[in-house]
Amino acid sequence: MKKLRRSARIADMTQYLLERPRLLLPLTLFSERYGSAKSSISEDLQIIKDVFVMEGVGDLETVPGAAGGVKFLPDVHMAQVEEWMQELMQGLRTEQRMLPGGYLYLSDYLHQPQIVNKIGKIFGSLFAAQDVDCVMTVETKGIPLAYATAQVLNVPIVIARRDTKVMEGSVVSINYVSGSSKRIQTMSLSRRALPESSKVVIVDDFMKAGGTIRGMMDLLQEFKAEVVGACVFMESDTTTHRIVDEVYSLIRFNHDEQVQEPINLTLGNIFDKHSDKG
Amino acid sequence: MKKLRRSARIADMTQYLLERPRLLLPLTLFSERYGSAKSSISEDLQIIKDVFVMEGVGDLETVPGAAGGVKFLPDVHMAQVEEWMQELMQGLRTEQRMLPGGYLYLSDYLHQPQIVNKIGKIFGSLFAAQDVDCVMTVETKGIPLAYATAQVLNVPIVIARRDTKVMEGSVVSINYVSGSSKRIQTMSLSRRALPESSKVVIVDDFMKAGGTIRGMMDLLQEFKAEVVGACVFMESDTTTHRIVDEVYSLIRFNHDEQVQEPINLTLGNIFDKHSDKG
Repeated sequence: MKKLRRSARIADMTQYLLERPRLLLPLTLFSERYGSAKSSISEDLQIIKDVFVMEGVGDLETVPGAAGGVKFLPDVHMAQVEEWMQELMQGLRTEQRMLPGGYLYLSDYLHQPQIVNKIGKIFGSLFAAQDVDCVMTVETKGIPLAYATAQVLNVPIVIARRDTKVMEGSVVSINYVSGSSKRIQTMSLSRRALPESSKVVIVDDFMKAGGTIRGMMDLLQEFKAEVVGACVFMESDTTTHRIVDEVYSLIRFNHDEQVQEPINLTLGNIFDKHSDKG
Repeated sequence: MKKLRRSARIADMTQYLLERPRLLLPLTLFSERYGSAKSSISEDLQIIKDVFVMEGVGDLETVPGAAGGVKFLPDVHMAQVEEWMQELMQGLRTEQRMLPGGYLYLSDYLHQPQIVNKIGKIFGSLFAAQDVDCVMTVETKGIPLAYATAQVLNVPIVIARRDTKVMEGSVVSINYVSGSSKRIQTMSLSRRALPESSKVVIVDDFMKAGGTIRGMMDLLQEFKAEVVGACVFMESDTTTHRIVDEVYSLIRFNHDEQVQEPINLTLGNIFDKHSDKG
């Protein structure tokens, strides 16, 4: 690349860093890319870091030494997240969304990249500084959300199937009881899809009693995997006993069989646990 | 936001534009955001534009007038894409990937955000300057790719289900014959998921004879939708007659029942049609 002025360097470094979250980039990469001294590159990075921190984009972590460099760690301001979640709940309350079985229609929200990417960034930020190997979900509705989270963490997505007819070599299947319907269901994952002893973040769109999340955790045990954490967009706070604790939620749906409208939504537990942040 | 120096402004504008592809942003938005004159903002945008064009990130389109502003249009350099695809094919050829029925195991590639986002950017760039309302796929394996494309086009993703038991109100189902297995299969889409007369880009991971793509096109007819285009990561060039023409592919898998290894891969038709670009 030809020698660039500071302003052009900063435009390029910004897009380069944003595309490579959590990856350690040696400063020589940039100094060679722009034909600039490392001291100039360090100054550029400080300018970008200040903007990222101020705007709630994330942080730049500098690792000193010969094997060092700079890493973009995505982050959010929890105060901004809470404000946005209040807006989102306001929108969700105003429409006919009740589905049979105590579910809510959320696909119009959870299919918009502008919304899904923001949620993925919130989930990803929770684990950005930790060691994570992949993000797991079970088909179908949670996949965009899990992908957006995987993108922020810069790790692969792993998708469990509800179908055992998947033709991808040997498959591990488990039966689980969906906490809401009490029906026995099956979930499968190809051996090839997940190396043993992986560190996994679980993501899903909706959790009722937690049977599906529990199913994923059981399936992961077969792969000797470690569950780093679990996140859902919405949890339904039913009177039934929850099967899983320690699942982050953004919104709580206080479902009452007797009352259909208005839909009763409150902030999820992510705001209790991370009220110290931002 | 406090008044920023040019270099800080450029870092912020770069991240702001990248997060909002194809959205018209009025210059006043930036001049108010930074307390800067519009003339300075225009100079900033020119610097970012030059870097984006040079690096194959995309282009900034300026729309003059009172209702005008600036739009980030994602784009790729096809020469870079071709080089990358050659690398990818080299990796795919070196491993045991044959699955029963003439399929290839691609999940390890198509679950990595760094790869999927690049492919989504290639697909999205084909239609970035056109009027597109959503990106459609059918569950499951094509969803990450379709989401990455939707993200680049900044439109919702629409996911057809193979299951008719979906509880999201009234559903349109069609039967279709999978070109490869000759079996009759079902595909459904909730009425609520797609407004009538939408302009749709179809995305999938793998196409054999094209039965699944044809199925999606038939389903879209029920919604009076217009198919703007269709893209697959890999097409299998079998001797059987293709059901659909005009589907862009990145890689062609020249499958021969008699020869298992090495896997015969060549560049897809996207390189014929767009050899003029970049």
